[in-house]
Amino acid sequence: MAIPVPAPVRDTAFDLVPTILQAIHDADETLQDGDVLALSSKYAAISQGRIVALDSVQVSAEAQTIAERYVMNPQLAQLVLQEADHVFGGITHRFNGHEVGFLLTHKDGIISPNAGLDRSNIPDGQVVLFPQAPYRFAQIIRSAIQAQTGVHIGLILTDSWLMPGRMGTTGVALATAGFMPVRDERGKADLFGNPMQVTQVGVADSICVCAQMVMGETAEATPIAIVRNSGVSLLTDGHIDVEDVAIDWQTCIYVGGLTGGKL
Amino acid sequence: MAIPVPAPVRDTAFDLVPTILQAIHDADETLQDGDVLALSSKYAAISQGRIVALDSVQVSAEAQTIAERYVMNPQLAQLVLQEADHVFGGITHRFNGHEVGFLLTHKDGIISPNAGLDRSNIPDGQVVLFPQAPYRFAQIIRSAIQAQTGVHIGLILTDSWLMPGRMGTTGVALATAGFMPVRDERGKADLFGNPMQVTQVGVADSICVCAQMVMGETAEATPIAIVRNSGVSLLTDGHIDVEDVAIDWQTCIYVGGLTGGKL
Repeated sequence: MAIPVPAPVRDTAFDLVPTILQAIHDADETLQDGDVLALSSKYAAISQGRIVALDSVQVSAEAQTIAERYVMNPQLAQLVLQEADHVFGGITHRFNGHEVGFLLTHKDGIISPNAGLDRSNIPDGQVVLFPQAPYRFAQIIRSAIQAQTGVHIGLILTDSWLMPGRMGTTGVALATAGFMPVRDERGKADLFGNPMQVTQVGVADSICVCAQMVMGETAEATPIAIVRNSGVSLLTDGHIDVEDVAIDWQTCIYVGGLTGGKL
Repeated sequence: MAIPVPAPVRDTAFDLVPTILQAIHDADETLQDGDVLALSSKYAAISQGRIVALDSVQVSAEAQTIAERYVMNPQLAQLVLQEADHVFGGITHRFNGHEVGFLLTHKDGIISPNAGLDRSNIPDGQVVLFPQAPYRFAQIIRSAIQAQTGVHIGLILTDSWLMPGRMGTTGVALATAGFMPVRDERGKADLFGNPMQVTQVGVADSICVCAQMVMGETAEATPIAIVRNSGVSLLTDGHIDVEDVAIDWQTCIYVGGLTGGKL
């Protein structure tokens, strides 16, 4: 069950933990032991001041070339090159009668367009980057909330993302704190007693999608959701990191099947 | 809210609609107007008899070559070639100390490994294919349930799938009946009054993920879930088809960014 929690719109750095706790209070909700708090990664990023005015960005020759090839805003292309851990390539497609381009990137364990840069829900001409050090930041927010409420919770930073071959976005957990983001069912028995071959369940990503169902994408201003009875087991110690959920992109079947292994 | 509905294990063709209605009755649940019924695509496929014994499959020279290149069971490679609408390529990776291969494919609007073929939760040596004509089948099941219960519902066929670069599976709606699988928010205003640029929300895929959170992947035998208060608007007429949610893979940013647009 996901409970939406509205919170004030922000467009400059702010103090995140008191804002979250006030928003939960104002929504007449309380955190309970075992809840997973879902927090918009964009809201987290804005709290860190991770906002860039496009006209402040110096465009390199490489970004200019890429921007021309893929019909992108050159400042945006520059920011993607700066932010991405790896750039695979680009694509241009027609949208509302004009060409729009994107770069396909890897950043913070997520393969997605434009390194997670986001131009919506922020004043025109500005771009929100991914939060800095998302796993560490998630752990810091979780610890602070636990310290102030005395309640034992998990936390995820939610982000929208586009699935291959699909029109609509779903969600991905940019970071997880307090529980294992993947539940490993390899070796368990299936319905006929045979060992499961390759089943690992993306628990954090699934919780993220369920939370985003109630959080909204446009002007709803609901950057927080409380996910109750998700079935996750909270950890009492140990930190989660990107390696607990992301695989090297070199071993990803999508990357491998479309590049070196292309038939 | 997703309500799990257990149902009997099946491994040969069976009559699906009475099985669903009996299972809902046995779980002391009732369908309500506006519910979305989530049904495991594998359960739907088994009801259609879409089960193949691997040792009955004749292996072509092409399948043999691919099987050797990607360390696959040759019969499985043959089935993937037969079932896929398009094969992009293959990959081999190490798993539990030995090599395992997959083909990356497009089938029924979904880019995924091995054309959706599934060897778990079916007796050893057998493989379950995707259900035949999934959108039409979803509509037939929906109509039959509505006719017998007098209740107006949506329906999705759920499938597991692997997100690029991630360890765990989440879900994808293999087919949708009774509501638009994508909610288009392009042109709506964002928090600052600017039009949203590219946001379309994958509603059916999101509902699928939430349903699968309660359905289980191993021996739980819960192939059905009732998703209540999902917020979708049910259609009174008109059929949903794969074109309502899938894009041509030629225009997909993952495919394009990793092939023709690779930097």
